[in-house]
Amino acid sequence: MTSQDKVRVPEASLRATVTAIFETLGETPEDAALGADTLLDADLRGIEMQGVTLLLPIQVQRYKDGWIKPRAEWKIIRETPGTATIDSDHGLVWILGSKYMQLAVEKARNVGVGVVTAFGGGDSGRIGHYARKAIEHDMVGMVTSCQRAMAAPTFGAEPRFGTNPIAIAAPTRDEAPFIFDTATTATALGRLRIAYRDGKPFRPGTIAELDGTPVMEETPSRPEGEFIMLPQGGDREHGSHRGYGFGLMAEVLATMLTGTLPPMLDPDARERCFFAAYNIAAFCDVDTFKDNMDRMLRTLMETKTAPGHDRVVYPGLPSHEEMQRRRVNGIPLHPNVIDWFSGMSEELGVPRLELLD
Amino acid sequence: MTSQDKVRVPEASLRATVTAIFETLGETPEDAALGADTLLDADLRGIEMQGVTLLLPIQVQRYKDGWIKPRAEWKIIRETPGTATIDSDHGLVWILGSKYMQLAVEKARNVGVGVVTAFGGGDSGRIGHYARKAIEHDMVGMVTSCQRAMAAPTFGAEPRFGTNPIAIAAPTRDEAPFIFDTATTATALGRLRIAYRDGKPFRPGTIAELDGTPVMEETPSRPEGEFIMLPQGGDREHGSHRGYGFGLMAEVLATMLTGTLPPMLDPDARERCFFAAYNIAAFCDVDTFKDNMDRMLRTLMETKTAPGHDRVVYPGLPSHEEMQRRRVNGIPLHPNVIDWFSGMSEELGVPRLELLD
Repeated sequence: MTSQDKVRVPEASLRATVTAIFETLGETPEDAALGADTLLDADLRGIEMQGVTLLLPIQVQRYKDGWIKPRAEWKIIRETPGTATIDSDHGLVWILGSKYMQLAVEKARNVGVGVVTAFGGGDSGRIGHYARKAIEHDMVGMVTSCQRAMAAPTFGAEPRFGTNPIAIAAPTRDEAPFIFDTATTATALGRLRIAYRDGKPFRPGTIAELDGTPVMEETPSRPEGEFIMLPQGGDREHGSHRGYGFGLMAEVLATMLTGTLPPMLDPDARERCFFAAYNIAAFCDVDTFKDNMDRMLRTLMETKTAPGHDRVVYPGLPSHEEMQRRRVNGIPLHPNVIDWFSGMSEELGVPRLELLD
Repeated sequence: MTSQDKVRVPEASLRATVTAIFETLGETPEDAALGADTLLDADLRGIEMQGVTLLLPIQVQRYKDGWIKPRAEWKIIRETPGTATIDSDHGLVWILGSKYMQLAVEKARNVGVGVVTAFGGGDSGRIGHYARKAIEHDMVGMVTSCQRAMAAPTFGAEPRFGTNPIAIAAPTRDEAPFIFDTATTATALGRLRIAYRDGKPFRPGTIAELDGTPVMEETPSRPEGEFIMLPQGGDREHGSHRGYGFGLMAEVLATMLTGTLPPMLDPDARERCFFAAYNIAAFCDVDTFKDNMDRMLRTLMETKTAPGHDRVVYPGLPSHEEMQRRRVNGIPLHPNVIDWFSGMSEELGVPRLELLD
């Protein structure tokens, strides 16, 4: 299945339908819009694995099963001027994440830095989206989260931690904002699912056999349950001990600082997240910061290229460019996804997607 | 040169001599001891590239040249309840780093989290050492720093950023503390220097040719100036865009949040650092945190191993074990290093090293 086979949908139509789906599942109109915004941010930026395609059907089912609770009554269970720990009450982090970052921002406005940790929530989605929310307030945002155990530690043969992404965002003056959002595993589970769906191979160093042997060559894709994921790097020689360490950094910040057990010890644990906002004005002059960011990012873009490459980019730039294109040309979706939405329109009465192709 | 050729020196003797060297260079006895402690922490843990061997001769010369200033009058130039920005006044971060983390700890005691950024200092040394200082106060410590530009961004052919390490430490109850301290480049400059000194090859994916082409096979070592360093991962296929992103994360936190320009734009800039302390009691029960850490780390150690490996470790464990051994057996030093110390004893009148072999 190639991108030519996909059908393009205008941003506004997809946003309206996804928002309506959340409303039929019991969320308020404001919260439904927040949830749609998290998904659309991924789909607009071309990050299919964190958009409607893979994540929305799963979570809709979880609402129906009662695993996700609409209008969750999340509450702060411990608080200081610079920090808060939150029980998410089974609410979806796609909706709550922006609120938690907003709380971190308010604390950072008062004392220079704000940190919020949260447990008990549904899927955390694209965490770079919440990090980016901080930059609208002239702050640096940092987010990390922990998922169910799927990846083996270096030299190990049993899954011990999840994709455990880490994201950081910083504002600029004229250039596209810096948004770094990475899995600490060799790849995200979503990419493996997409490769299997599309009949494409797994890249080298992304999975291990079930006995823990890293597969360091390209290999035919397989379904979940027939592999263990690997930390970024793949094997020790390629630096997997660092991916493993960053994965544990996420466990310390997002899991341990909520006082809960990691998924390796509590498989039913829901997602744990860490949100930090650093108020730039508390550290230095905001204009200087933004000018310096622009100068740094332009210097990176103007770096002489290695043979075979035509430009150097930085984290956040390619997805920003893709977002500009998709706002004009629409968001390409796989026909199976269009079919799923059609089913939702019939079942829930939400607006049908407008198709551009 | 193998470890058999090295000469063992007792911790106390090395500590006394290094402390005396700092005192002859103009530091107070207390500050001299702090500087020695940072170096000894690396040498005790078996991290030669961040100990006396490579770093001390360079910094002694820098004191003599006036590049490093003893008894530096570092000062806070901007401050809020949770943050401080510091001008290091050309002082050595080996000495100042522990003080800056202490300031972050005091802020975290008051408002739950404390962040200190600093510019204008000499070599930041082993940043995991300062992160570890936070755990003595039941806090999580995080540190990052930025050095002169030596590594190319993914697809680039010019050095744009430094080793830019990131470290995080968390307390435990009975197990060795979690201390993750990693370069974001494929290797640290010190390791390349040691390989060249010892006539050993460079590992795959650690350097690029001067035109930016990543060298993804093992290659004979070469002197500085004949290669460009690579981000963790080496090339794009092995995930160098992530190492590059983490390197930029360090620039955002440690450089941009001091209001200064990165080394790629200001080659004479001194080291910039970021110190964060997260007060565990602000987030959750401290005993629960430590128990959960122990359970997580034991679960990792007890993970079934992949074929060809006899155990799974976690960051901080191997260096902790090495420290126990070296406290008993002494610290092995290369004969050239012993000679350098002998020269120092004659020149500065500091105590001669006691040799165990």
